Amino acid sequence: MKRPTLEAVAARAGVSRATVSRVVNGQATVTPEIRDAVIRAVNELGYVPNSAARSLVTQRTDSIALVVSEPPTRVFSEDPLFSTVIRTASRELEAADKQVVLMLAGNAQSHARVERYIAGGHVDGVMLISMHGADPLPAAITRMGVPVVSYGRPAVAVDLPYADNDNVGGAESAVRRLLDTGRRRIATIAGPLDMIAGQDRLTGYRNVLRDSDRRSIVAIGDFTRESGAVAMRQLLEDDPKLDAVFAANDLMAIGALQALRQAGRRVPDDVSIVGFDDIEAARYTEPPLTTMRHPIVEQATAMVRLLLTPPAERDRDQVILPTELVVRESG
Amino acid sequence: MKRPTLEAVAARAGVSRATVSRVVNGQATVTPEIRDAVIRAVNELGYVPNSAARSLVTQRTDSIALVVSEPPTRVFSEDPLFSTVIRTASRELEAADKQVVLMLAGNAQSHARVERYIAGGHVDGVMLISMHGADPLPAAITRMGVPVVSYGRPAVAVDLPYADNDNVGGAESAVRRLLDTGRRRIATIAGPLDMIAGQDRLTGYRNVLRDSDRRSIVAIGDFTRESGAVAMRQLLEDDPKLDAVFAANDLMAIGALQALRQAGRRVPDDVSIVGFDDIEAARYTEPPLTTMRHPIVEQATAMVRLLLTPPAERDRDQVILPTELVVRESG
Repeated sequence: MKRPTLEAVAARAGVSRATVSRVVNGQATVTPEIRDAVIRAVNELGYVPNSAARSLVTQRTDSIALVVSEPPTRVFSEDPLFSTVIRTASRELEAADKQVVLMLAGNAQSHARVERYIAGGHVDGVMLISMHGADPLPAAITRMGVPVVSYGRPAVAVDLPYADNDNVGGAESAVRRLLDTGRRRIATIAGPLDMIAGQDRLTGYRNVLRDSDRRSIVAIGDFTRESGAVAMRQLLEDDPKLDAVFAANDLMAIGALQALRQAGRRVPDDVSIVGFDDIEAARYTEPPLTTMRHPIVEQATAMVRLLLTPPAERDRDQVILPTELVVRESG
Repeated sequence: MKRPTLEAVAARAGVSRATVSRVVNGQATVTPEIRDAVIRAVNELGYVPNSAARSLVTQRTDSIALVVSEPPTRVFSEDPLFSTVIRTASRELEAADKQVVLMLAGNAQSHARVERYIAGGHVDGVMLISMHGADPLPAAITRMGVPVVSYGRPAVAVDLPYADNDNVGGAESAVRRLLDTGRRRIATIAGPLDMIAGQDRLTGYRNVLRDSDRRSIVAIGDFTRESGAVAMRQLLEDDPKLDAVFAANDLMAIGALQALRQAGRRVPDDVSIVGFDDIEAARYTEPPLTTMRHPIVEQATAMVRLLLTPPAERDRDQVILPTELVVRESG
């Protein structure tokens, strides 16, 4: 985990840090003796000179890392988010003759490996997807000087270009739809609260209920179908008289539909339900799901364009795409 | 595409190739003046010194490339082969503290990019999946001195460690099952013939029919469900009296079941069908599918172990896993 620093190389070679930088950059402004000493220290310590060394070896790798902070079981699951983002980013980057290098980092060890890999200068840029909590990667990559963008607003306070959809506004529209159709006891199945999409969609729900003087009824899932079913059963126990649910994504809404059916509740007669994302499966549920369309393809395209456009040439560093209510039969 | 060669660097610097190698390897056995001249030539030409440069920059990248020669739409599809191999390889490599770097190479440009990337020393080893036809990657990677293994026997004549299942023997068992249950006109839906799994499963079918004096009835698909349905309709036109089908994978068998139903044929009463792979969906078809179990997890595990074991310590360079007939209702 611990990598030798530039300082350590400078100390071993008996030269300044600036001299080490010049040597690993391949600049011919130091004496051959000093260059020798530095290269010997680099080799003895196994120093990884980041972008400096990268420019010695090759100017570009022509590859962009797509780092998904989820385990493989999540990425290759029924959730179409990841495959859609990967497909879209691959298509956009291939058009620019860049290779996508996909790395799944679902635990702390793989996070550390991915950080070392990027520090090693093996990619020209990084796209981050599905960040959780106080992820140290965005700040670490920014410090390395490697271009980095995020799919979705980062959960940490780091100045990172990103493309997102209007999670707060979308959740507000979903809950307003339930109010407008006469519902009075509106619960929510929130997403994981260490993710921005989880936090923001819950904020949208609370914003509308606060204005309307209704009370919050909240259960928390993890964006999987199973967690939606579990959360729905819990909500029915907490408030058997609830008459509507806003689920923070469609997969949880689908799980909730199943739990409602098992509990003998008719949808939408007894309980209305609105989801979020408009995945393809939302059209085929029984009844078909009313949901907020989350423009995944457009958001992934915007993320790639942010990465490929040099900062000085960008109109803006943040792209927020609107969501849209898709009315079907569930709510 | 064209990269400067070691020769070009040697010519520019006015030294021998061996001297260039020593310099980019960081050996201190050349004079400082010559070292300077070589490094200048390397930088001016943008030379990528492969593993030589890699050892200058860092001993290891702690990452292994998983190169899938398919477009993203195929990898993120209903075919569980890719996700199972990726999940299994990730788990096995994480246990060895290696990061999987996934690269999809579904066309010639991305093949060329992947080759450049591996030549750049950005990974410690390579696993190849889903090779088609005369793929130049295995030979190119072997020439670079980068360890490489294949999921499945390579279609090209290159000496590569690989793990495979017994495609010929499995197909023979499937066709023998159809003969043993009294079927007389046995067709096959073969896989793509630029892939070893496609070729070998067709060979198994022909081996058994040749021994039994029955004639071949062959249509060719591409391992997708749609292609299985198309091939089945074609077979029914070619020989309306056929009474059995061996499909070279389960997805094509599922497509064939659909086409048989649409043509008013009962399975297995009118037409028996046996698939290959035993994917999860094979249990839920109507009727449930008789198939050959292809041990995907074990094969992927064997591939990773081959890569992680140094050649001198390996028992063998090829692992062939047995297949197993799983009898359900379709045949």
